Amino acid sequence: MPTSELLPAVAALRLIDHHCHGVVPRDLSRAGFEAMLTEAESASPLGGSLFDTQAGFAVRRWCAPVLDLPRHAEPEEYLARREELGHAEVTRRLLRAAGLGALCVDTGHNPRSLLSPGELAEAAGAPGYEILRLEHVAEEVVESGTSARGFAGRFRERLTELAGAGEGRVVGAKSVAAYRAGLALAPYRPGEGEIAAAAGRWLASARPDAPARLADEVLHRFLVYTALDLGLPVQFHVGYGDPDVHLSRANPALLTDLLRATAPAGVPIVLLHNYPYHREAGYLAQVFPHVFADVSLALHNVGRRAGALLAEALELTPFGKLLYASDAYGLPELYHLGSVLFRGALSGLLREGLAEDAWTERDAGRIAGMIGAGNARRVYRLPG
Amino acid sequence: MPTSELLPAVAALRLIDHHCHGVVPRDLSRAGFEAMLTEAESASPLGGSLFDTQAGFAVRRWCAPVLDLPRHAEPEEYLARREELGHAEVTRRLLRAAGLGALCVDTGHNPRSLLSPGELAEAAGAPGYEILRLEHVAEEVVESGTSARGFAGRFRERLTELAGAGEGRVVGAKSVAAYRAGLALAPYRPGEGEIAAAAGRWLASARPDAPARLADEVLHRFLVYTALDLGLPVQFHVGYGDPDVHLSRANPALLTDLLRATAPAGVPIVLLHNYPYHREAGYLAQVFPHVFADVSLALHNVGRRAGALLAEALELTPFGKLLYASDAYGLPELYHLGSVLFRGALSGLLREGLAEDAWTERDAGRIAGMIGAGNARRVYRLPG
Amino acid sequence: MPTSELLPAVAALRLIDHHCHGVVPRDLSRAGFEAMLTEAESASPLGGSLFDTQAGFAVRRWCAPVLDLPRHAEPEEYLARREELGHAEVTRRLLRAAGLGALCVDTGHNPRSLLSPGELAEAAGAPGYEILRLEHVAEEVVESGTSARGFAGRFRERLTELAGAGEGRVVGAKSVAAYRAGLALAPYRPGEGEIAAAAGRWLASARPDAPARLADEVLHRFLVYTALDLGLPVQFHVGYGDPDVHLSRANPALLTDLLRATAPAGVPIVLLHNYPYHREAGYLAQVFPHVFADVSLALHNVGRRAGALLAEALELTPFGKLLYASDAYGLPELYHLGSVLFRGALSGLLREGLAEDAWTERDAGRIAGMIGAGNARRVYRLPG
Repeated sequence: MPTSELLPAVAALRLIDHHCHGVVPRDLSRAGFEAMLTEAESASPLGGSLFDTQAGFAVRRWCAPVLDLPRHAEPEEYLARREELGHAEVTRRLLRAAGLGALCVDTGHNPRSLLSPGELAEAAGAPGYEILRLEHVAEEVVESGTSARGFAGRFRERLTELAGAGEGRVVGAKSVAAYRAGLALAPYRPGEGEIAAAAGRWLASARPDAPARLADEVLHRFLVYTALDLGLPVQFHVGYGDPDVHLSRANPALLTDLLRATAPAGVPIVLLHNYPYHREAGYLAQVFPHVFADVSLALHNVGRRAGALLAEALELTPFGKLLYASDAYGLPELYHLGSVLFRGALSGLLREGLAEDAWTERDAGRIAGMIGAGNARRVYRLPG
Repeated sequence: MPTSELLPAVAALRLIDHHCHGVVPRDLSRAGFEAMLTEAESASPLGGSLFDTQAGFAVRRWCAPVLDLPRHAEPEEYLARREELGHAEVTRRLLRAAGLGALCVDTGHNPRSLLSPGELAEAAGAPGYEILRLEHVAEEVVESGTSARGFAGRFRERLTELAGAGEGRVVGAKSVAAYRAGLALAPYRPGEGEIAAAAGRWLASARPDAPARLADEVLHRFLVYTALDLGLPVQFHVGYGDPDVHLSRANPALLTDLLRATAPAGVPIVLLHNYPYHREAGYLAQVFPHVFADVSLALHNVGRRAGALLAEALELTPFGKLLYASDAYGLPELYHLGSVLFRGALSGLLREGLAEDAWTERDAGRIAGMIGAGNARRVYRLPG
Repeated sequence: MPTSELLPAVAALRLIDHHCHGVVPRDLSRAGFEAMLTEAESASPLGGSLFDTQAGFAVRRWCAPVLDLPRHAEPEEYLARREELGHAEVTRRLLRAAGLGALCVDTGHNPRSLLSPGELAEAAGAPGYEILRLEHVAEEVVESGTSARGFAGRFRERLTELAGAGEGRVVGAKSVAAYRAGLALAPYRPGEGEIAAAAGRWLASARPDAPARLADEVLHRFLVYTALDLGLPVQFHVGYGDPDVHLSRANPALLTDLLRATAPAGVPIVLLHNYPYHREAGYLAQVFPHVFADVSLALHNVGRRAGALLAEALELTPFGKLLYASDAYGLPELYHLGSVLFRGALSGLLREGLAEDAWTERDAGRIAGMIGAGNARRVYRLPG
């Protein structure tokens, strides 16, 4: 839907993209582009081009005009123009087009080959904040050398140090337990002995030729509690992701006991992505006072179905508990797609409610502001 | 959708609300009202007012006019008018507005501080029936004093006595296994020795200062079989509920083996709520001859998405197997919302089918009668 | 939607029905017809006629005209006309009406009392291929006499022989692990010792008075690997089915590890049915290069909701990874319903995308060709 058809309150939003990643600072071949377009590792000779997906059609529809091409430009034409403009200009155009009010960048995955939060912020013309990936921090602690007994203290120190750096630059933490030990985390705070034992198992199993990789239920839980102790909102990867995800272990319902146990602390926990378990996430966001949810990643992958997805997510999620994020990674296109699809979905939902007389124009505008920016500002205590 | 826009066969329905609860016979503060509006225990400072939910907007849209307010009255205005009228008048208006043909009231949760089935029936102007909560009956048996060996016999006696009381007043039983041991119940009827052993464990673990609380797979199953033996239709809480639910243990698919084992008895089993597993429930209602389903509780919580929910539930559920219920608890508003949202959803679904030429007007009217009342009359053997 | 309203590219499709079964070569009573209409074993006195389902209304709407009756003919009228025409003519008319380009027939269930692939092909006017049911082949091997140690070799020989028979007649294999041991299959190829031990357990547990029935995790897995070794695409029953299915064991996410392990072989694996886990299936089809999905069986059971179902399935499934199938069994009506509902759903989805400017007419036509026929031709290496 063109900007002119959006509900004005939605068109005017400077969205807070509360969970995103760096983009690749280089030009891309068609294979390289397709490899970052969806969660598949690459196009498959059996299955054909990944441009023939909802995400692919959304790129051709929504990103081509930002590069001065007609809507629905063919993939080859799109990639040629992309190369002609160069990655820096393409990134600048697409991040500006997203209309962001702030970005919270997860720097835990492959940061060295991606734009930094500062570079992204400059390209987007909006302030950039950082989300610390907990397992990455723990792995750095281990790689820098620690004993099993010393691990807990070293991790706490390091996380405290990172969280305090840069005067409010770090606004949250993220757990990828879903990818490792799974989300069936026990509820209680692990004791020092348990942590040391788990760290000992980890250190003993480490292979000298491979990077450290945390995948232990006790340790994931320790990391989460440590972040909450510091008052850092904790994001969890939930549901849909790359081929390393096992959906059976990534259902947000598995977090129920931990969410119940952490509610009294009053520090936000944010369930990311959630697809296809966004209704389960909505239940959790409704009944636990500190739980929030988004539909990032799925948003650009489902393309024109973004409206259907958002409508399902907002069945139970209170309107004060849903956040916007793109989960863009690698391709600047995904920043723009997340934004444009979210705006279309939110505007469509609010307009349908208006047409059915479900709420007033005033309420619609208020909801738009909450979901697009206000909720995220409250969760992460962002200025503005 | 105003009554005038409903399909006439739907507008004319006297709905059987086959699963509901008492309402609070007192005026409510804003905090008290919000605490009963959704399944959250209270509004959260992090998440904002629970009026900013689908349920909250539905109250403002549909209940305000019943209290002589304009549609979309602000929450404060709504609550002030509610207090001005007084809880008794508010209850009478909202229950009348629901247009009920009968109510089947679950009296097992907090009955002393809520209106009784007789009081609800009077307010609604429709006959009231009772659903016995199985675990509550068992807990009363234990609290009145029993041995482990004596438990089974005492429970059977007590349930038989309650079921026979009041000449047809009791029409069914309900299990909250989903909240306690979970729905992964073994299929077979437990033996007397197993029951005594389980009762012994329960009695041994009871704390003198706390009320008895049944949470044992064998005992839940024994209760269900006892009710079925008496010919009482058994309702199961399934899926969505308050923060005590763990959705992973409340999926109706977990009941598959028990449903297969109980099919030959020919006594109805009704899966309540089911969200977000209403499609799983539809499968079970299709393939097992004695299984029925509803979309209660979710109905008012999803507000204007009730139509989407009902459409999904009726993908596999035979039209002779879906029942109406509000699962209203505490607030009389929820009686009215359940009814008005269900009517809108059913009417919308039937009208869309007519517009697509999927069925005839005559069939549409017949389906409306079945789903709104006939199926429930058949399941619970209600007169009329 | 009448053919005249379909997108021309969809109306013109000769669909490849890549998973279907034989139909009953005899006239049917009303009870006999209802017993094959949905996945229920029969109509239930508690629940009423199975014509009062989405599938039942779809028969009256779409099949009645093929038998020269008005749309929405009453069930009795429909069955009388069916008998008048005779099963052979009814089969011919309904299979022709499906507009098929080819059929891939699963011959593993009850083949002796159903039409053969050749007879179906003749009725449909399209080439017929065969899908071997792996467990059925293994059961025949056991019934013909084998030792535990000899089982693996005998099965390999037999499958090789069957796969090579008839010059390209056999195009794939199917596993019903979902109905037996469940889909939580270990990823790795079982060793000869493991297979012999599992076969030994099977042989030891066989009852002389009952047909052999394979239900062993190791053996299901061995069968699948054997088929993949022969280059045969493997279909898995997933999700929705008859009352023997336990949905908790039939979720496609349970196959994740096996799918990851088999990806390098590059032989297609096709997830059948998938409802209500079609979104999970879409994730798997997106991220694993050799995984494909369909929405068969659910398609005719959800009737006029076929469009909603297809739209959800195509959120993540790449358009090069979705196949058409009816999963028709017993009733020729289900061949026609699958086709007509799929065409309506696909046309509706493509037209909505066109109306929203999500893709071009040219792309829409291309997608229709892929999903309706091209993808299946590629997966099963069909000529044409």
